Amino acid sequence: MRDALIAAAFQLFLERGYEATTVDDIVALAGVGRRSFFRYFPSKEGVVFPDHEGCLADLTAFLDGAEEDPEPVARVCDAARLVLRMYAENPTFSVQRYRLTKSVPGLRTYELSVVWRYERALADYLRRRFAGRSDGDLHADVIAAAVVAAHNNALRSWLRSGGQDDAEAGVDHALEFVQHSWGAAGEGPAAASPAGDAAEAEDEDVVVVITKRGTPLWQVVRGIESGLDGTGGANG
Amino acid sequence: MRDALIAAAFQLFLERGYEATTVDDIVALAGVGRRSFFRYFPSKEGVVFPDHEGCLADLTAFLDGAEEDPEPVARVCDAARLVLRMYAENPTFSVQRYRLTKSVPGLRTYELSVVWRYERALADYLRRRFAGRSDGDLHADVIAAAVVAAHNNALRSWLRSGGQDDAEAGVDHALEFVQHSWGAAGEGPAAASPAGDAAEAEDEDVVVVITKRGTPLWQVVRGIESGLDGTGGANG
Repeated sequence: MRDALIAAAFQLFLERGYEATTVDDIVALAGVGRRSFFRYFPSKEGVVFPDHEGCLADLTAFLDGAEEDPEPVARVCDAARLVLRMYAENPTFSVQRYRLTKSVPGLRTYELSVVWRYERALADYLRRRFAGRSDGDLHADVIAAAVVAAHNNALRSWLRSGGQDDAEAGVDHALEFVQHSWGAAGEGPAAASPAGDAAEAEDEDVVVVITKRGTPLWQVVRGIESGLDGTGGANG
Repeated sequence: MRDALIAAAFQLFLERGYEATTVDDIVALAGVGRRSFFRYFPSKEGVVFPDHEGCLADLTAFLDGAEEDPEPVARVCDAARLVLRMYAENPTFSVQRYRLTKSVPGLRTYELSVVWRYERALADYLRRRFAGRSDGDLHADVIAAAVVAAHNNALRSWLRSGGQDDAEAGVDHALEFVQHSWGAAGEGPAAASPAGDAAEAEDEDVVVVITKRGTPLWQVVRGIESGLDGTGGANG
């Protein structure tokens, strides 16, 4: 019945527009009563994002089970991948919703509050993990926001492609930027032992960086990246 | 008249609650007509955030005049400082509003959409500045989100202190984390020539970093930070 309500809602949103569709219209088309609708969805906006509550619960559980993970930044990146997977599992629906959300300001605001809850879940986890660090809360908030922004950048590219691109590759690439900023170098979810990975580049296990004092830090970091894990190559 | 409307609105919000106050109540207390209210504010939410439109316009103008700024990351940090200053100029009002916004879900959603507009303005500027870079849009979105998160972390600390702490020092400290992640080392708004500043630490102008391949990048970066500009000292 839940799926029937979602299908009816989207059929009407596409036919006559979101604002012009009422919950009564949706339940009439689905052939159920109003109370059934509100058993599944808190509001008309809720039916547009039917999977977020479940996904948020999955993400929270995924993080709750990771209080000992040695790489908390990689963990929140993996949590963001869970959200992406929810979208990627149903490209047609996701692309339809993207177009709908773009055209209805009320839905964009609703979506912002959903995104905010994901971001808080990531930040809360990192705050716990960084509890012993000076500025732990600050670092947690900033990194959580960066992960969400990277995820959303990749998600929107994929949605704009009409769901044609490789969503997972896109988000992996975007999250790499975050992990290279703050995570362990080369410590991605797909990476094996970081120490051995760069063996094709050099036989030496030590990287020496010589730089002028006052060099922009990002320039130095880019230089080190290529030495540490053999990636690099971004232009300035 | 605008100030009288704001004062009347907050008096009523505090006395009887936000939800229970209507625009009619506000204009009655201020002694003006409904049309006057809507000349100044788009909605009841609008009167809670009366300075954001002006601040957003200032911020956009500040960035539009900076297409040649050699340090775009420092520039968006300065733009965030403009927003903080708007709050810090009127601590009593800002703290009242903070408490109100925290307790009214509708206002929090409204605030999210305001914050989103600031973030888009920063990201749009960085996208223009990074247009020639590979992954320029991604970097722009992530850095803009990080700046906003750092700003909001500092702003909330200040608001929680009841407006007692030093707001500007708090935001400077928070933005330093962002600038050390991606900006030029030591290139803050208050910094002089980066190359000369570290002279008290060493006489040598070259920094040599020796590290094992596979060392987490953030660890290496922290090591370099202390060498490059004499700050550092954050614990792991």
